[in-house]
Amino acid sequence: MITPPTIHAFLPPKRILMGPGPSDVHPQVLAAQARPTVGHLDPLFIGMMDELKQLLQYAFQTKNDMTLAVSAPGSAGMETCFVNLLQPGDTVIVCRNGVFGERMRQNVERCGAIAITVDNAWGEPVNPQAVEAALKAHPEANFVAFVHAETSTGALSDAKTLCALARQYQCLSIVDAVTSLGGVELRVDEWGIDAIYSGSQKCLSCVPGLSPVSFSPAAVARIQARTLPVRSWFLDQTLVMSYWSGGAKRSYHHTAPVNALYALHESLRLLAAEGLEQAWQRHNDMHQLLKLGLESLGLKFVVAEHCRLPQLNAVYIPAGVDDAAVRKQLLEQYNLEIGAGLGDLAGKAWRIGLMGYAARRENVALCLKALENVLA
Amino acid sequence: MITPPTIHAFLPPKRILMGPGPSDVHPQVLAAQARPTVGHLDPLFIGMMDELKQLLQYAFQTKNDMTLAVSAPGSAGMETCFVNLLQPGDTVIVCRNGVFGERMRQNVERCGAIAITVDNAWGEPVNPQAVEAALKAHPEANFVAFVHAETSTGALSDAKTLCALARQYQCLSIVDAVTSLGGVELRVDEWGIDAIYSGSQKCLSCVPGLSPVSFSPAAVARIQARTLPVRSWFLDQTLVMSYWSGGAKRSYHHTAPVNALYALHESLRLLAAEGLEQAWQRHNDMHQLLKLGLESLGLKFVVAEHCRLPQLNAVYIPAGVDDAAVRKQLLEQYNLEIGAGLGDLAGKAWRIGLMGYAARRENVALCLKALENVLA
Repeated sequence: MITPPTIHAFLPPKRILMGPGPSDVHPQVLAAQARPTVGHLDPLFIGMMDELKQLLQYAFQTKNDMTLAVSAPGSAGMETCFVNLLQPGDTVIVCRNGVFGERMRQNVERCGAIAITVDNAWGEPVNPQAVEAALKAHPEANFVAFVHAETSTGALSDAKTLCALARQYQCLSIVDAVTSLGGVELRVDEWGIDAIYSGSQKCLSCVPGLSPVSFSPAAVARIQARTLPVRSWFLDQTLVMSYWSGGAKRSYHHTAPVNALYALHESLRLLAAEGLEQAWQRHNDMHQLLKLGLESLGLKFVVAEHCRLPQLNAVYIPAGVDDAAVRKQLLEQYNLEIGAGLGDLAGKAWRIGLMGYAARRENVALCLKALENVLA
Repeated sequence: MITPPTIHAFLPPKRILMGPGPSDVHPQVLAAQARPTVGHLDPLFIGMMDELKQLLQYAFQTKNDMTLAVSAPGSAGMETCFVNLLQPGDTVIVCRNGVFGERMRQNVERCGAIAITVDNAWGEPVNPQAVEAALKAHPEANFVAFVHAETSTGALSDAKTLCALARQYQCLSIVDAVTSLGGVELRVDEWGIDAIYSGSQKCLSCVPGLSPVSFSPAAVARIQARTLPVRSWFLDQTLVMSYWSGGAKRSYHHTAPVNALYALHESLRLLAAEGLEQAWQRHNDMHQLLKLGLESLGLKFVVAEHCRLPQLNAVYIPAGVDDAAVRKQLLEQYNLEIGAGLGDLAGKAWRIGLMGYAARRENVALCLKALENVLA
C-alpha cells in the first residue's frame, strides 16, 4: 500500500479578488453553495433548474429556449459553441485581438473547420471594416466569431455591429461573453447573437466552474441539421438538452454539479434583484472612480477610453517597477489580488478587475491606497 | 428589456442520498467548499493543488505523475481518457455490461476510432475469456476499455485480470472507476491500469462536478507520441498539465473550479484519515447489513453475490409494486432518495447506494425500515 499523506485542512484567507477572475464571490452565493446536496433528478432540484434557465435568459436578455449552464468552466462553454455548430469544412471568420480570439481559432481547427483570422492589435477592439472585408473575400464563410470583452486586454468590441454584419452575410455569430455578461450592456436577442458563452466567475460573482451558454433558434436549427455527430459526447447539446428542457421528464445525461448550480442560481437572483441596467451602471461608476485614482498615480491605460471595459482595467507597469514584487506585496500585505499581464502583455501590464461583487467603492479605495503605498 | 423574474432563494431539504450518486456529502466537505474563493494562481491555492495531487495518488494507489481532477463531471473524465489517448484508426476492445460500457463505445466512435464490443448481460461482470477471444481475433487492437463498477447494475468486474490481459496483448487499459474509487479494492499501479477516471460524487462523498483521472507513464508516452492534436482543447491533457504539474510556475489553461477543489481536498483528506482499506471494509460491512435486511423483505439482487458491488445494490422491484410511487413516498415522507433502474433495468429494479459517507449504520437502518413501511 502507498501510505496516506498527512495533510491539514485548507483554510484560505479572505482575499479581495480584483484580478481578471475569479472575482469576489458574494457571501450569499458561498452560503447557497454549502446547502445540502440533493439528487440531480430530485423534483425540487428540477424546479430550481427551471428557475435557473429563466434567470439565465434574463441575464442574457434572450428568449432562447436552449439557454443553460455548461457543467464546466468558460473554456468548455467556448468549446460547446464550436463543437456543436461546426462540422469539418465549415469556414469561420475568427477575430483576434487578444488571447481568447486565438483560443477560438484553435477550437475551430480542432473541429476540423477552417479559420480565417482577422487581426487587430492587442488592446484594440475588433474592427468591423476588417471583418466586412473578410466576409467579402470569403463568401464561403458561414460563421463569425469574436470576443465581446477581451479579458487579456480590457478592450470592448461592438457586438451589435459585428452580429449585424454576420447576419448581412448569412453567417451565424459566435460570441465570447465570459467577461461581459453582467458587467456591460449585452442584449442577445436584440443584437441577433446566435451562440454565446460566458463564465460564472466574472461579473456574475459566482464560484468558478460553470459556463452559461445560449443558442438562437437559427443556431439550434444548424445543430439539428448536422450530418456528423458532435465530436464531444459530454458537450453534445442535443443530448444535454434532454436534461435541461425535459421538465418533469428530464432524463439523465451526466450528473449535474448540484452545489455549483445552487451558487449560480443565487448569484443570478442577486443580479435580477439589482437589475441588469443598474449592474452595468455600477460597473461603470466604479470604473470612473478607479480610473481617476489610477491616473493620479501616473498609471496609463492599455485601451483607449471609448472602447475600454469598466470591469477589466489593464494599465502599463511603470518603468523600473518590479511586476511580480508589486503583486506579491499587494497579496501578502493587503490580501489584494490584481492580475498579471497575459500573452503579449505579460510583464508589461497589470489587469485590475472590477467584476460583479468586487465592483464596490470599498474595493476601489483599498486598491488605490494599497497601490499608492506599494509604488511609493 | 426582458424583465427580471421574481425568484426566491432555493432552500433544499436535507435528503439522505442512497441512490447511484450523488451520495451524501460529508458536512466537513460542504463547509470546506464554502470557504472564501481565492485566485486559481494564488500561491496558497497552488500549494493546495499539490496536496490534492498527493491525495489523489493515495486514493488511486498510484505514483503516476499525471494524476489530477478534471474540472467537470465523470462523463468528462471518461472523455478525457478517450480523447487524449485515441487517434482515428485506433482499435479499442470495449466491454459492455451496462450503460457505461455503451457510453465508452460512443466515445470511441466520436474520436474516429474503431470499437470492437464484447458484450455481457446486464448484471454480469465482464468475462475475461470473451475479452481474450476478442484480443486474439483483433491483433490490431491497441486498447481495452471496461467499467470496473457498473453503476447501472451493481456488477464488479475483475480489473486486475482484465488489465493483465490487456498488457499481455500489448494493449493499454482504460478503466471506468466512477463508482469504484474509495468503495472497493482498486490498485492502479499494482494492477497496471493505464488510464482511469472517476467521479467526485460517489464513494468520495464530495459534491458532484469533478472527475479524478490518472495516466500511467505508458499512457503519457502514447499521448506525447500523438501525430494529430487532441480534438478537445478543454480536455487536452498536454495543455492542462502545464497548470497541474507546473509547481510554482503553473501557467493558465482554464480557471480552476476553486471551491469545488476545496471540497475534493477535504473529502480525500477524510478518506486518507480513515484509511483506504478501512473504507473498503466499511462499505462491505454496511452492504452485509443492508443485504440481510433487503433479503428479509423478500427483495432479490440483480447481481450474483460473488461479483456484487457493496456500494450499489440493485434489487428487483417486487411484482405488483409501483416503482415510481415507492420512490416518491420514500423521498417525500422520509427524505430518502434511492435510485431508479437505468437502461435495461428501468422500471425493473431499484438501485440502493451505500457510497462514501452514506455507508453508515444509521442509513442502513433508515432505509430498511422506510422500505418495510412503504412496501407493507
